[in-house]
Amino acid sequence: MSEQGLRIDTERLVMRLDELGAIGAIEGTIGCARLALTDEDRAGRDLVMTWMRDLGLDISIDGIGNVIGVMPGFDPGLAPVMTGSHIDTVATGGRYDGNLGVLAGLAVIETVITAIERGDLALTRPLAVAWFTDEEGARFAPDMLGSLVYVGGMTLEDALVIEDRDGLSVGDELDRIGYRGTAPLPGPAPHAFVELHIEQGPVLEDEGITIGVVDGVQGISWTEVTLTGQSCHAGTTPMRLRHDPGFVASELTTFVRRLTEEFGGAQVATVGSLTLHPNLVNVVPSTATMTVDVRNTDESTLQRAETRFRGHLAQVAEREGVAVETRSLARFEPVEFDDRVVDLIEAAAARRGLSSRRMPSGAGHDAQMFARVCPTAMIFTPSVGGISHNVTEYTEPADIEAGANLLLDVMIELTETSFT
Amino acid sequence: MSEQGLRIDTERLVMRLDELGAIGAIEGTIGCARLALTDEDRAGRDLVMTWMRDLGLDISIDGIGNVIGVMPGFDPGLAPVMTGSHIDTVATGGRYDGNLGVLAGLAVIETVITAIERGDLALTRPLAVAWFTDEEGARFAPDMLGSLVYVGGMTLEDALVIEDRDGLSVGDELDRIGYRGTAPLPGPAPHAFVELHIEQGPVLEDEGITIGVVDGVQGISWTEVTLTGQSCHAGTTPMRLRHDPGFVASELTTFVRRLTEEFGGAQVATVGSLTLHPNLVNVVPSTATMTVDVRNTDESTLQRAETRFRGHLAQVAEREGVAVETRSLARFEPVEFDDRVVDLIEAAAARRGLSSRRMPSGAGHDAQMFARVCPTAMIFTPSVGGISHNVTEYTEPADIEAGANLLLDVMIELTETSFT
Repeated sequence: MSEQGLRIDTERLVMRLDELGAIGAIEGTIGCARLALTDEDRAGRDLVMTWMRDLGLDISIDGIGNVIGVMPGFDPGLAPVMTGSHIDTVATGGRYDGNLGVLAGLAVIETVITAIERGDLALTRPLAVAWFTDEEGARFAPDMLGSLVYVGGMTLEDALVIEDRDGLSVGDELDRIGYRGTAPLPGPAPHAFVELHIEQGPVLEDEGITIGVVDGVQGISWTEVTLTGQSCHAGTTPMRLRHDPGFVASELTTFVRRLTEEFGGAQVATVGSLTLHPNLVNVVPSTATMTVDVRNTDESTLQRAETRFRGHLAQVAEREGVAVETRSLARFEPVEFDDRVVDLIEAAAARRGLSSRRMPSGAGHDAQMFARVCPTAMIFTPSVGGISHNVTEYTEPADIEAGANLLLDVMIELTETSFT
Repeated sequence: MSEQGLRIDTERLVMRLDELGAIGAIEGTIGCARLALTDEDRAGRDLVMTWMRDLGLDISIDGIGNVIGVMPGFDPGLAPVMTGSHIDTVATGGRYDGNLGVLAGLAVIETVITAIERGDLALTRPLAVAWFTDEEGARFAPDMLGSLVYVGGMTLEDALVIEDRDGLSVGDELDRIGYRGTAPLPGPAPHAFVELHIEQGPVLEDEGITIGVVDGVQGISWTEVTLTGQSCHAGTTPMRLRHDPGFVASELTTFVRRLTEEFGGAQVATVGSLTLHPNLVNVVPSTATMTVDVRNTDESTLQRAETRFRGHLAQVAEREGVAVETRSLARFEPVEFDDRVVDLIEAAAARRGLSSRRMPSGAGHDAQMFARVCPTAMIFTPSVGGISHNVTEYTEPADIEAGANLLLDVMIELTETSFT
């Protein structure tokens, strides 16, 4: 219980996660598919809208389809303490990624409203809960699109003309599902922003810890490398006459692993995609296309990794006589969250008796956009088996309860916190 | 010119290669597709049949659709000197692979018949030209199917029930295209067998040599390796908690290359196929499926390579915590051709003033089946750029002429050669 003796209704929160997860359900699994701005996304949005209306929130929808609900009865000039996340999913999504943050936000506000009505609590500024369009980026690139536009990182005009693979635009799809609103963009900066999210990784479970106090988001460097050699017969071509792009790709994949061992710490690097052509047992490939995902919380280390990779790539490709093309697929500098919010979360977890550790987020989140405009941090709850973006994604009810109650405490405390 | 002053009609041979290559032509290329026992293969067969009939050959078709034409007018008890190859192609085939050996054989026999009719030549035994069903194995596995059945390496019954990907059987398809014959199988052993074929590799061109005197066929070991790890998020999963099958596959690919450097000589090894799942930039793969093609002319070296590979595979997979399944896709011991035939080809090339070198074949050929039943060797002509199994496959008319005239000399000389 919080200092005010408050706690959220866990049973109802879990029930609502299940109810929302049943929309776009993937048969035979507990997963769901609600790609941004599809009919399934609309159905999910409509359901969450009814819950927001039931709470009596002041609801606004902006031009990119972000939905914000603010507690009524406060001076409109008072910036709210905002929480939020997203309710779109990847094609093989789970029930928790994004949804937990939104529905826990609703649960927090409901608890607070009830406490105020009972006279047990008085706030000096309102709370708000928001959900942002196309956080996953699984249908429209880039990801975190809605929050990016909210904080002014992309103009609405540029965002509305983005098309999916079938040539359907964000603007037209917003119109089609009825979620193209009129609230101005960029949106007003909240007093502070805090997002509750599942970890999507195995660290908390592996260490038996309940709460991740997220102090930043790793910088991300995604590079696509296309290697072009000379296809030839695997039986008839002596090794000295080969220009094998598959070998070069493999050499780079092992190099990337060696680099993480050398750098140590939180350095991660992954070759998740590697495609050979023509991909036949007895033909030396003509081309290899690979992706390299490198992340670090420290920008200078990230740059050093990129430099080392480029150097090794050039050297190995030249030795093998293979042509190289590289393309940057994504590049984000690391984000540091606000120390004061991070400290506050850590202290609040301790008061609840919850084990916690500071950690960076390896994945991108809407919160990192808000870090540009207001004091921001995040709370992680464990993911069973570290699994996410997968129909088997699961977080224990006890962890959901811990995370949501911590969010409750933190949001209340943030209303009292001055950041000037 | 041969000792008898004979030479084949190169212009007509090249014209016929073009005419046959126009059947199943792949638009916009000089390549063609005549997969075994398709309508295109039938059309190609029908055309070559008319040329064989024009020569007045005694034609027989056996139960697997191999076609053999023998010069008439000899004692039927005399085993012929046989040449032959195949006229089926891969899906993106060229005009020379296989076809050259068959049509050059026809040209040789035509030249010899004309010389006999003129009274310039007398043979003590006939020549024969053959073409074998499904040498490429691109539709029905295994490859070299027709010649395998001819020499008794597989029963006709077993061969007829082999199915393609659509469940169509060899027997039914032979019936459908009208090439299921009645000549007995296994077929009678020829006196000797010699096959002219394009090199399908770059060695002759690279060294500026016209004739490859093929003294054997490399042993082949094909293994499919399926590696199963744990899919996870590339950003949120620390390196120490990963079980990445893509990394293991890459480590094996670079190991295979190091092995060829260590073994040296004619050792070749190739990872031509590598498929990751789900193959996404930000997901550590759950599975990697790769093939390893290892070849050597020496059986014990080949076995040593296989043992070393298996050992490294077990070690790396265990270290990474990745499960391994392996499956043998093909395993053929090296074939040694007959020294006497090899020497004879080499000497005949020298008499024609043609540069030559001994070499193994890296690819499989019908001749290797005949090595089981009679003295056998092969003649290679250069492939431009080493390219084969590709629509751009090309061999210069001057090289075609050199190879076909050498085949002419060798076949005549083999009629006089005693192998007892």
